Amino acid sequence: MAERGLDAECLAGLRTTVGAGNVLTDPADRLPYGYDNSRRLALPDAVVFAQAADEVREIVRLCHRYRMPLVARGRGTNTTGASVPVQGGVVLSLERMNRILDIRPGDRLAVVEPGVTNSELQAALAAHGLFWPPDPSSAAYSTVGGNLACNAAGPRAVKYGSPRENTLGLRVVTGTGEDIRTGVFTTKGVVGYDLTRLLIGSEGTLAVITEATLRLTPRPAAKRTLRALYRDVGTAARAVSRIMAQPETPCALEFIDGNAIAMIRHYQPALQAELAAGAGALLMIEVDGSVAAVEAAAAAVSAAAGGEGLLELRTATSATEVAALWDARKALSPALRTLAPKKINEDVVVPVSRLAELIEGLQALSARHGVPIVNFGHAGNGNVHVNLLGDPDDPAQLAAMHACLDAVFDLVLKLDGTLSGEHGVGLEKRAFVGREIGPPALALMRQLKRVFDPHGILNPGKLFPDAAEA
Amino acid sequence: MAERGLDAECLAGLRTTVGAGNVLTDPADRLPYGYDNSRRLALPDAVVFAQAADEVREIVRLCHRYRMPLVARGRGTNTTGASVPVQGGVVLSLERMNRILDIRPGDRLAVVEPGVTNSELQAALAAHGLFWPPDPSSAAYSTVGGNLACNAAGPRAVKYGSPRENTLGLRVVTGTGEDIRTGVFTTKGVVGYDLTRLLIGSEGTLAVITEATLRLTPRPAAKRTLRALYRDVGTAARAVSRIMAQPETPCALEFIDGNAIAMIRHYQPALQAELAAGAGALLMIEVDGSVAAVEAAAAAVSAAAGGEGLLELRTATSATEVAALWDARKALSPALRTLAPKKINEDVVVPVSRLAELIEGLQALSARHGVPIVNFGHAGNGNVHVNLLGDPDDPAQLAAMHACLDAVFDLVLKLDGTLSGEHGVGLEKRAFVGREIGPPALALMRQLKRVFDPHGILNPGKLFPDAAEA
Repeated sequence: MAERGLDAECLAGLRTTVGAGNVLTDPADRLPYGYDNSRRLALPDAVVFAQAADEVREIVRLCHRYRMPLVARGRGTNTTGASVPVQGGVVLSLERMNRILDIRPGDRLAVVEPGVTNSELQAALAAHGLFWPPDPSSAAYSTVGGNLACNAAGPRAVKYGSPRENTLGLRVVTGTGEDIRTGVFTTKGVVGYDLTRLLIGSEGTLAVITEATLRLTPRPAAKRTLRALYRDVGTAARAVSRIMAQPETPCALEFIDGNAIAMIRHYQPALQAELAAGAGALLMIEVDGSVAAVEAAAAAVSAAAGGEGLLELRTATSATEVAALWDARKALSPALRTLAPKKINEDVVVPVSRLAELIEGLQALSARHGVPIVNFGHAGNGNVHVNLLGDPDDPAQLAAMHACLDAVFDLVLKLDGTLSGEHGVGLEKRAFVGREIGPPALALMRQLKRVFDPHGILNPGKLFPDAAEA
Repeated sequence: MAERGLDAECLAGLRTTVGAGNVLTDPADRLPYGYDNSRRLALPDAVVFAQAADEVREIVRLCHRYRMPLVARGRGTNTTGASVPVQGGVVLSLERMNRILDIRPGDRLAVVEPGVTNSELQAALAAHGLFWPPDPSSAAYSTVGGNLACNAAGPRAVKYGSPRENTLGLRVVTGTGEDIRTGVFTTKGVVGYDLTRLLIGSEGTLAVITEATLRLTPRPAAKRTLRALYRDVGTAARAVSRIMAQPETPCALEFIDGNAIAMIRHYQPALQAELAAGAGALLMIEVDGSVAAVEAAAAAVSAAAGGEGLLELRTATSATEVAALWDARKALSPALRTLAPKKINEDVVVPVSRLAELIEGLQALSARHGVPIVNFGHAGNGNVHVNLLGDPDDPAQLAAMHACLDAVFDLVLKLDGTLSGEHGVGLEKRAFVGREIGPPALALMRQLKRVFDPHGILNPGKLFPDAAEA
């Protein structure tokens, strides 16, 4: 069990390793490193900035020796509390390890430090006609290391996959301070066990990433954007199934339900005329490819989008129109923040063919529990962000929200789904992990954790139903 | 350490579990289960046929209890000895667990038992307009379970990935007889550690796969096949780099070197006129996509294939012509078998931009060691099957072949490559694993092995430089 409180010798060792200026102990300085986008807060005992893999190795070795909790952190954009240091100890900020070490267009790969932001990387890659597919909505701020730690995806995953499908290898420091390389610099490799993907999505509980070799994709020459409005969520969900059953896989297939549309109409009067009153669901569809391919792809997804319940299908033909079509989607987050600043935002996934059942089931749960629910998300992956609206400071509302959430998770699992598609477990979903993963698999995962981190120092108190190090 | 010899109680337990008719102990019956395509042989003490996951669980529990080696086996097509029971014990044949349990076109997934062959699966999927990307050359015979155990790929991997990118979840029995589910039924999921990909490619050393949920891809409507002949391997390798640096990723980009072309010309006189004398390399290129897209894709790869050293570029416009273009590639294996039945066939990978250096380096090693080398393979992944020709029964030739192979591996690692792209380690490459994977990562892998299989019963003596259970 890791212990609270920073040993003086450990602190001295940290200062020797990175220089006193790179160790913060003043409470005011530590505060910004105590929370993330989950709105949870726990003060670390120290914040340490590493500038190189060798420093990370020494920091982990110190924490291992002194049984000190260590939470590696990018920019803290995650929503689950995964980067909140709930047991105190050291927050290791990797934001200054932000170099792009190499871009090799001929090999479609880039080697980066973990602290580079997703958007900085994309900008550098664009100059070579390449991109890295993961595109979480936090891309402007979130780091590649954080994206990898959480297997953070985004709209493009429907065509291009998540970090697990777009990473060739890693350099990491395990919980005992071993500096290891995993994976390869090639697009194929079967020597030894696949540690790369085991580490991706492990939320900093197995090792600290100090370098990543990313698999890149050439930027398609053209893109087409379409928006489809449907009578109700059921017909929209069935259109999603039809779109995904034909060969032209969209590079984005986003869904917004009728409650969200009504909200946008209310809070963004400029969009009232734009969005027909009574539309029960909206799909944003993008296809990309060569100039020759993209029109045919747009025609194919348009044909699949058509049918029962379709009220309107618009295709953008200019950049201005593309922006206009996305306006409604972009108005969603500010509207939600205004209406319900303390909403519960979930991230469930079901097989695409069960999407209509999920959405209809959510409507029933909303009615039964008296909790307004707004749904949007990455429909092509069956990944729905379920927003339970209410004021958690009102005990009755809080109880109803929690009862409803509980039923939402049951519904998702009944539909062969998973409790998180891209946000992860962190603190928020710990209590629910055992519903999805059976005791023997969980026991195995705990043992894997102990192999990488025998003292349980790495991001303790996360991901498992109870503290992994206990 | 697992022990040789089958305990009578264990044998009785196996017979009770699967019925006496599903346990073979006669040496003549055991023989066909003692070898694989590596030409190695070791007789198991018993061969057991399982028909259901529950039987597999009981068989593993028995072997765990009696410390009995257990080698799970599909059809034994692998080339590395991975399915040879070198420590005796039980060979568990999964060939009778060959049902396709479910195909869900709307979810782009299939649920299968491990013993279904790749080609049986593809035939069933074709009826739904779908395919499973992995296409090893053994596809007509090899099982999906074996493909997963070895992460077996094939030409299509360059565009569609390996089993790791095309599997959603597994049901497996660990070395202690625990029956667990890994992964999800969806295309996204981040709850818990990624056990699915850890198990894929682990060559039966961590668990026995009893069910797999496969990610499917819609069949493209059209395909174009091109063949390009080059003056020498260097110019062909640089053409591969150019092809992979543009956005139209081929669905096959196969390479054959000049030695192979000369051999084909010699052993298949019908192809003499077809293949210009003196051609130093040949590329087979296929692109697929919608009818609208495929012509543009063919034009793009043709443009990239052009340039220095190109002698001839032919595009097939009919099925007959496609078959004719592939004739040379298909003539390769019989020609190689005739010329050098005991050749060493390696499976190295380098980053695509280093392909020219690899091929030129191989030519130099061939000259230095006096060992003829024939190269072909999946150039778009940088995956080259390096064939060292010679007669291993002649001690001098054997010594030269081994010295040359040693130098080949050094060259590959110097070029940031990996020792195996799709064949795996098994017995054949055990001695070389330590050159690619450092001691701390190997130590970690051994510990992972012990978590899944504490008694070391699962496929002992494979994958690690020395026996993992030692």
